[in-house]
Amino acid sequence: MKAEIIAIGTELLLGDIVNTNAQFLAKELATLGIGVYRQTVVGDNEERVLSAFKSAFEYCDIIITTGGLGPTQDDLTKETASKYFNKELELHEESYDFLIKYFEKNGKKLSENNKKQAYFPKDAIVLKNKNGTAPGCIIKGDNNKAIVVLPGPPREMKPMFKESVLPYLSKLTDEILVSKVLRVCGVGESYMEELVKDLINNQTNPTIAPYAKDVDVVLRITAKAKSEEEGYKLIEPMEKSVREILGDNIYGEGEAPLEHVVGKMLVDKNLTISTAESCTGGLVSSMLVSYPGISKVLLEGAVTYSNEAKMKRLGVQKETLNNFGAVSEETAKEMASGIVKASGSDIGVSVTGIAGPGGGSDEKPVGLVYVGLSIKGNVKVKKFTFQGDRDKVRTRTAVNSLDWLRREIMNL
Amino acid sequence: MKAEIIAIGTELLLGDIVNTNAQFLAKELATLGIGVYRQTVVGDNEERVLSAFKSAFEYCDIIITTGGLGPTQDDLTKETASKYFNKELELHEESYDFLIKYFEKNGKKLSENNKKQAYFPKDAIVLKNKNGTAPGCIIKGDNNKAIVVLPGPPREMKPMFKESVLPYLSKLTDEILVSKVLRVCGVGESYMEELVKDLINNQTNPTIAPYAKDVDVVLRITAKAKSEEEGYKLIEPMEKSVREILGDNIYGEGEAPLEHVVGKMLVDKNLTISTAESCTGGLVSSMLVSYPGISKVLLEGAVTYSNEAKMKRLGVQKETLNNFGAVSEETAKEMASGIVKASGSDIGVSVTGIAGPGGGSDEKPVGLVYVGLSIKGNVKVKKFTFQGDRDKVRTRTAVNSLDWLRREIMNL
Repeated sequence: MKAEIIAIGTELLLGDIVNTNAQFLAKELATLGIGVYRQTVVGDNEERVLSAFKSAFEYCDIIITTGGLGPTQDDLTKETASKYFNKELELHEESYDFLIKYFEKNGKKLSENNKKQAYFPKDAIVLKNKNGTAPGCIIKGDNNKAIVVLPGPPREMKPMFKESVLPYLSKLTDEILVSKVLRVCGVGESYMEELVKDLINNQTNPTIAPYAKDVDVVLRITAKAKSEEEGYKLIEPMEKSVREILGDNIYGEGEAPLEHVVGKMLVDKNLTISTAESCTGGLVSSMLVSYPGISKVLLEGAVTYSNEAKMKRLGVQKETLNNFGAVSEETAKEMASGIVKASGSDIGVSVTGIAGPGGGSDEKPVGLVYVGLSIKGNVKVKKFTFQGDRDKVRTRTAVNSLDWLRREIMNL
Repeated sequence: MKAEIIAIGTELLLGDIVNTNAQFLAKELATLGIGVYRQTVVGDNEERVLSAFKSAFEYCDIIITTGGLGPTQDDLTKETASKYFNKELELHEESYDFLIKYFEKNGKKLSENNKKQAYFPKDAIVLKNKNGTAPGCIIKGDNNKAIVVLPGPPREMKPMFKESVLPYLSKLTDEILVSKVLRVCGVGESYMEELVKDLINNQTNPTIAPYAKDVDVVLRITAKAKSEEEGYKLIEPMEKSVREILGDNIYGEGEAPLEHVVGKMLVDKNLTISTAESCTGGLVSSMLVSYPGISKVLLEGAVTYSNEAKMKRLGVQKETLNNFGAVSEETAKEMASGIVKASGSDIGVSVTGIAGPGGGSDEKPVGLVYVGLSIKGNVKVKKFTFQGDRDKVRTRTAVNSLDWLRREIMNL
């Protein structure tokens, strides 16, 4: 079965709002195994909405619309859908009563405009709206096609979909899509794709697909199956193959970001940590703090942007700064040791680098970063060179520091 | 002139990501006075992309695509656009050199896959990508139609649009829209709209429109004019009226975020600063560090998540923590004084609060935050109660701390 998602609303065409409804519906339909080949946004204009319906039904069985159910003249989705199927609108008593009561509750009288929201095409399945005045509906044509008409505001649309549309569509499909997401750090999207190329080329069911996120990459394994259980069984061998290839580069599953994974590892292993940051300015500690349980293990963070703070707070030697500079392997080393000494933590992470746009030289260009890691007395330093603007260099530095930390903890 | 925005990417059809690009482009095109009647999303599938191009060019002059410029086999936007216009792809030496250097810098070798990103149709205008490996391009057909091909990641697409596409499109339209953005903090979107309601109701040219951002609100004044100069002249009196109403709530203009405005104020007035953070975990210092010139004035940051660190690093009294708790006016006060004492800075900012999801009580609920400000010996504390999840509470805390600091510096 195939569906098209059509959002109707001039405010979308003007860019006043983001079409989050399309994402929600796309995900729901994918889970149901209903293929979505196109999403469309059109304005509140009868001709263009009609033409969108025609074009969609050339290949799909179901159209799901959002928006255009309001009380005003330019809300015309329901009217246009009825016209498409050649059906008359008639007053739906139950909805009319509901509207009267809804307005009474709010101390208002039902306006003529609002009465429009109680009219539906003959034989339509009317969908109750618990969070607004516009009921939705499912209009079925003689040609086995159907238009599901939903309100635009996400807090009305989403519950209506879950409560009324999902059960309706589930009955129409016999296969569902089950998927599992693996999160990867330390390998770029294109290199990862090369690594799993053979798996991709030979895929049937399940399929795998890599996606680049802002700072990491995810790999989604998707199986078509009769049940969730069967789906996960199909996914298992594929996941095993992927894990054999990508190994430690896979840092997690599902939605949890890297900083939560690292935070959890620290808490689970009861490893205390402290940070000493220069160019990241507190970004590493701030990312760790986004993990709710971190208070048990995060002892302290020091943002030592100036040389003076590096000396005073972390005990970095003046000679080190003079001889090698603030951005150097030696300084990173002393920063990591220094914060461990000051806080008494098991682990110390230090960062010093040139985030730009100024401050770079031929020898030490913008993007040069040293990360220091002191783990139970053992101090290591890693050198990175990152591309991008100031914020990107800082973000990449923080992410790569945490990823390195993750790998080191695994090897403890 | 009419345009259609076509996003290409299976991840959009599956609902893995939200199509924020469409909103951005819709807004930009509206500002240019270019009509957008439809937005479309299709998968990485040649046949469907071709059919989307054909259907769009039935009524519009320009197609803007996002996505499908990656190095992998299923990225085929550029190839399909070339096919549509019957043009051959050829190697673009400048882009090829850029790619080789880009990979060299990152200590990697250019893969065969990535080389694909340096191929463009003959005569295409190649658009540099400062934030990634995929250049965009503008492909013009013989029929006065053009396809503007942009990368999918917003942080690559947006700067490319602003720098290269905007000037190109501006030349094609004879009336331009000139706009000025005022940035507002401390007033919500709907309250701001109420404040400027009269201006909105009486607007003709220029128009004003408020937009809610993640943490602040912007107000855009837009004038239609024959030239930039004429546009700014039209904007002037409207800006004056807005400034009279919103006063100090306006913290800046254009793109510069709050942290850059505050960073610049500190540097300009040569006020040294240090931070002491608990629940924000380094977010305040990290935001300040995103301002490139900050090194001159940011002396030190302390992330004192534990009570012990608060005592040891900042000199917070044990009795204060025992009697009032770590999240209290008294602790915030001693944290601010403590960091000033430790670092010798003119200003100390302290943050202590309950970011959640755990740790809340009836008396001290999740979202309760105290911010301390020590300015030249004068210490004040402000209490906030924020709504939202852990990350939202932390972000709002950091932003409101900086906004308060801004207002205090203005009154110095």
